[in-house]
Amino acid sequence: MISDKAIGRLSLYRRLLRESAGNGEEYIFSHELAALAGCTPAQVRRDVMAIGYSGSPAKGYDVQGLISGIGAVLDPRKPVSVILMGVGNLGRAILSYFGGRTQQYTVLAAFDTDPEKANRVIHGCRCYPLEQLIDLVKAQEIREAIIAVPASEAQATANLLCEAGIRGIVNFAPLRLWVPKGVYVENVDMAMTLERVVYFSREGARAKVTG
Amino acid sequence: MISDKAIGRLSLYRRLLRESAGNGEEYIFSHELAALAGCTPAQVRRDVMAIGYSGSPAKGYDVQGLISGIGAVLDPRKPVSVILMGVGNLGRAILSYFGGRTQQYTVLAAFDTDPEKANRVIHGCRCYPLEQLIDLVKAQEIREAIIAVPASEAQATANLLCEAGIRGIVNFAPLRLWVPKGVYVENVDMAMTLERVVYFSREGARAKVTG
Repeated sequence: MISDKAIGRLSLYRRLLRESAGNGEEYIFSHELAALAGCTPAQVRRDVMAIGYSGSPAKGYDVQGLISGIGAVLDPRKPVSVILMGVGNLGRAILSYFGGRTQQYTVLAAFDTDPEKANRVIHGCRCYPLEQLIDLVKAQEIREAIIAVPASEAQATANLLCEAGIRGIVNFAPLRLWVPKGVYVENVDMAMTLERVVYFSREGARAKVTG
Repeated sequence: MISDKAIGRLSLYRRLLRESAGNGEEYIFSHELAALAGCTPAQVRRDVMAIGYSGSPAKGYDVQGLISGIGAVLDPRKPVSVILMGVGNLGRAILSYFGGRTQQYTVLAAFDTDPEKANRVIHGCRCYPLEQLIDLVKAQEIREAIIAVPASEAQATANLLCEAGIRGIVNFAPLRLWVPKGVYVENVDMAMTLERVVYFSREGARAKVTG
């Protein structure tokens, strides 16, 4: 089992490697990747070793090879379908973002309490009323969901998802969700991100990138 | 100077404290706040001590007092105006999210290369053509910007922002930006977040919340 933080770094390395590949680079040294990722070369080498990949001392890592190596660990065996809860502005942005962007992840269905949205197709994704959630999740064996409902509805939404069998949640609502053990939640809080950026740009100004 | 990670935790504590306050709680012990935040009580006590706040051993921290104490460190002295680059779906979602949500942060102006968007008001925010960026940033003394343009335009957008004097950037485009020293960038990458959630919900299933 690779640690939480190592997975985050591998995901970042892959993003950076794809950029390097896009710039026509075929090989990259651990110190170069480390500089891009904002960590140490030793850290990069440990993370890459942990996934069983290795480079050549003379040329560094093969960029495409390492992208595939990380994918073999990070990516599910087959494309993943997820569902979206809430088709307000943020929900639409998420649909637009994931629609066609990657073959790996598809938003298969979206749910909203607003009956006007039911059965509409938004950015290529069909919307359903909440009543159909449990049946659809079970029939399609969905494991992950994105929550983009208002804060006041988020916990009830999470309860329903967990009841339906969802095991992983990306939560955009600005509050902490209570979920049963075994369900993995990651929060994206845009207000907290802006808070940090304002703080550091004023108090601690220094060039810095976080994943 | 409080560390990067401590600032992130303080911002999370405040979010959790606001929820507690919303539930009518007046006091909270460090071990309770630690359980909510997913860290140790000792960590909470160190972070709170670092901002010069203290609780009572018998009752814990005063919830409202600690919210104010964190605000005194995190929040700028006066409300902050930021600008938004890119008024596509994601940009609109950001405008909708920040519009009226908080008095602390306002998206004062949005910029888009699409001339059709210039001078429109979207979610209460006026859109301008790019040519007006530098003048507006200087006149209004704007320091922070949110980038919500496509990846292919993100670096050129960042260059323009830095030239205009922007010192802090929240970057939603899925690539790393090169910025001059002294400019603080934080990336929000929704694809990477979903990647981690899928990985952990399948491989390492355990209840876990990250800030």
